[in-house]
Amino acid sequence: MLILAMESTAKAASVALVRDGALVAQSTQCSGLTHSRTLLPMAEDLLKNAGVKLAEVDRFAVAHGPGSFTGVRIGVAAVKGLAWAAEKPAVGVSTLEAMAWHGVAAGEGSLICCAMDARRNQVYNALFEIRNGKPVRLTEDRAISLDDLMAGLKADGRTPFLVGDGAHLCKAAMDSAMLAPENLRMQSAWGVAMAAMDKPDASGAALQPVYLRLSQAERERQARLNEQ
Amino acid sequence: MLILAMESTAKAASVALVRDGALVAQSTQCSGLTHSRTLLPMAEDLLKNAGVKLAEVDRFAVAHGPGSFTGVRIGVAAVKGLAWAAEKPAVGVSTLEAMAWHGVAAGEGSLICCAMDARRNQVYNALFEIRNGKPVRLTEDRAISLDDLMAGLKADGRTPFLVGDGAHLCKAAMDSAMLAPENLRMQSAWGVAMAAMDKPDASGAALQPVYLRLSQAERERQARLNEQ
Repeated sequence: MLILAMESTAKAASVALVRDGALVAQSTQCSGLTHSRTLLPMAEDLLKNAGVKLAEVDRFAVAHGPGSFTGVRIGVAAVKGLAWAAEKPAVGVSTLEAMAWHGVAAGEGSLICCAMDARRNQVYNALFEIRNGKPVRLTEDRAISLDDLMAGLKADGRTPFLVGDGAHLCKAAMDSAMLAPENLRMQSAWGVAMAAMDKPDASGAALQPVYLRLSQAERERQARLNEQ
Repeated sequence: MLILAMESTAKAASVALVRDGALVAQSTQCSGLTHSRTLLPMAEDLLKNAGVKLAEVDRFAVAHGPGSFTGVRIGVAAVKGLAWAAEKPAVGVSTLEAMAWHGVAAGEGSLICCAMDARRNQVYNALFEIRNGKPVRLTEDRAISLDDLMAGLKADGRTPFLVGDGAHLCKAAMDSAMLAPENLRMQSAWGVAMAAMDKPDASGAALQPVYLRLSQAERERQARLNEQ
């Protein structure tokens, strides 16, 4: 099965082509340019340089959140469009589950703490454990305070391996934790493809962003309604 | 300092842009297409998608070997050409030292065994140790038998973290060793850029392939001369 995967939920944009679990090609950039400018040209160039036609792709995959609301929408919209045009299934996977694949390097039995800076003193977080070379989920995706996350990590007792753009926040709060090296800290479309491999097929029409919490506009509207 | 790095010493081709140690963009592929077809288009598309002009690059870097003789020549020739045209320095780094950067994920004090399948019952190999988040060289690059490498690893006593396309050969000979996960096993241009950071500037004209041993044609010629 040939999967074309996209990741645009944070600062880095990434596109990967994975065949039966083996990486065929990946392009990643963290240039600060907007994903709406970079993501589709990266995908087009990646396919061209790998000599693969869009029609050969069996499944599209995208990190559907949590993450930057705009970034999530760009990735989901791009994959919806591709899946619709190519008449192929599309699978949305958790941003945190995708980045947990970077923790496989930490070895069997390792505790992987996936963390993204959610602002407002929160982190988007989920914990995983590496078993048989794959991340196995220990918690749901959640938006929690750094204090609550630290309490959970201390209760576990293992040295967590920290990935994601919130990894440095966790490291600052827990110096004994292991910060993933820079090449593994950022999200990657490879992780998205790996997380999408054993998910059931779905249609692009069913693909939805998963924000985990309300947007700023929705929060402000709710506050106004509550005041009335 | 902005470094454009290339890696084409084995099956994977990879191009990376690294600014002051931080990854700006990277494209990698392991499609089986020849590097002479993929490497320069990948570099061109990477710069275009990252919004960076070739003239902005401060230094070019390439894995100068060991590795596939043809792959090494393609990478060295491409970087020689770019450095000449752009009038910028070019730095050649050991393929094995570059891939040792993938071992940083294994943590402080880890023993990193970089191995490439050199055929003829040999591996291109070097050992490194992770200190302060960087690989520190323990041995020179060498072409040795798998048996000699295993004897060295057993004498060290630590569980080695195996990277490179010869990693599976080592794993087959030493089951207790840790095989790097697939996303870290292949060479990357990111590793080349990191290894090139603290090397002195050189001119593209001085850049030379480092094969570690004679090519098949040279060996056969030497054998014929010896018979005369």
